[in-house]
Amino acid sequence: MKLYGFWRSLATYRVKVALGLKGMKVDEVSIDLLKGMQHQADFKAVNPQAVVPVLILDEGGPPLFQSMAIMEYLEETRPQPAILPKDPAGRARVRGLALIAAADGHPLVTPRIRGYMEKELKLDEPTRNKWLSHWTLEALKAIEGHLKEKETGKFCHGDSPTMADICLCGQVVGATAYFKCDVSSVPTAMRIYEECMKIDAFSKPHPMKQPGAQAH
Amino acid sequence: MKLYGFWRSLATYRVKVALGLKGMKVDEVSIDLLKGMQHQADFKAVNPQAVVPVLILDEGGPPLFQSMAIMEYLEETRPQPAILPKDPAGRARVRGLALIAAADGHPLVTPRIRGYMEKELKLDEPTRNKWLSHWTLEALKAIEGHLKEKETGKFCHGDSPTMADICLCGQVVGATAYFKCDVSSVPTAMRIYEECMKIDAFSKPHPMKQPGAQAH
Repeated sequence: MKLYGFWRSLATYRVKVALGLKGMKVDEVSIDLLKGMQHQADFKAVNPQAVVPVLILDEGGPPLFQSMAIMEYLEETRPQPAILPKDPAGRARVRGLALIAAADGHPLVTPRIRGYMEKELKLDEPTRNKWLSHWTLEALKAIEGHLKEKETGKFCHGDSPTMADICLCGQVVGATAYFKCDVSSVPTAMRIYEECMKIDAFSKPHPMKQPGAQAH
Repeated sequence: MKLYGFWRSLATYRVKVALGLKGMKVDEVSIDLLKGMQHQADFKAVNPQAVVPVLILDEGGPPLFQSMAIMEYLEETRPQPAILPKDPAGRARVRGLALIAAADGHPLVTPRIRGYMEKELKLDEPTRNKWLSHWTLEALKAIEGHLKEKETGKFCHGDSPTMADICLCGQVVGATAYFKCDVSSVPTAMRIYEECMKIDAFSKPHPMKQPGAQAH
């Protein structure tokens, strides 16, 4: 398997955690988003949307795109260990929590948005940083609101990690390592993040531990 | 069943189409997003994120949130007619296409973003409209890129409607009815939208046909 990704990409991080939890190995190909490599023709032939991650399967078939869709594919084809609960209501809750990060939070802070804010809107750096920090924390606060529910356990949903934890951790990486959010308002999210970081599948692919981060 | 939604909400529209395709009836409760009703305490008790849609099930259990998670729940509990293909690679493609709209496109144009652009960033109306139009069309162009793939048929994936078509149609409603995009660069997306609109489940809940739109 081959994963097109980038050390700083939180969506890439999600897929790497899911692969790790399922004990799968991949070859990584770095697409440097900060240098705009995603817009080169050879990568756009792989993914016309010009974003990472993209997973190329050993079993053939078209490239897989969108981190949530990739995680669902992994779950359907390699069910153990599961990253979704068995019951439909539990699956809906886990997917809902995951989507708060993956759909409502993260798309607001991607390179294309940062570029538009700088080049089209001519917003200065403090204003851009405030946006990045604000929306990253808003998503975490929305998740925190749901973590008061009785289904929350050691992790977001019960006592084993799910897609919700994977997306939560990506969001916390953004909040803490990139955008310097004050995370004091999301203690349950932070407790779960710390719990996840005890697991190699979560901690080893942490963006700040990747070679690209060291070189940056 | 009870659906908290709003006539103008594209995420609410998605869920209504999915319910319609599966022949399900719901009672609708309008949460006026333009008047900020989503921030009232009684609704935040239903959904702490203060967004719609939220689906309350007859079978009990916690409120379902996030349109993609709600559609997955409906698919798991009422499998016929299916809104996902059977094969994992096809399911991944459909979910990926759906997420381009639901995750990468739509979150950039929601009321909370429009409010922040106006009140925090003090951007004038033409600048805000340009943002809304730009990102709505960008998502459609990304989907259009994938629609060149051989899996595309009468609909986004083969010849029956899926979650991808549902999310595509919401995105086209945004592009055409709300943000006045020039959609000439996305002919396949528009062809599929027109095909979907021949189906009652897609056309009846169209936002512009709702009582709220008439009154607006």
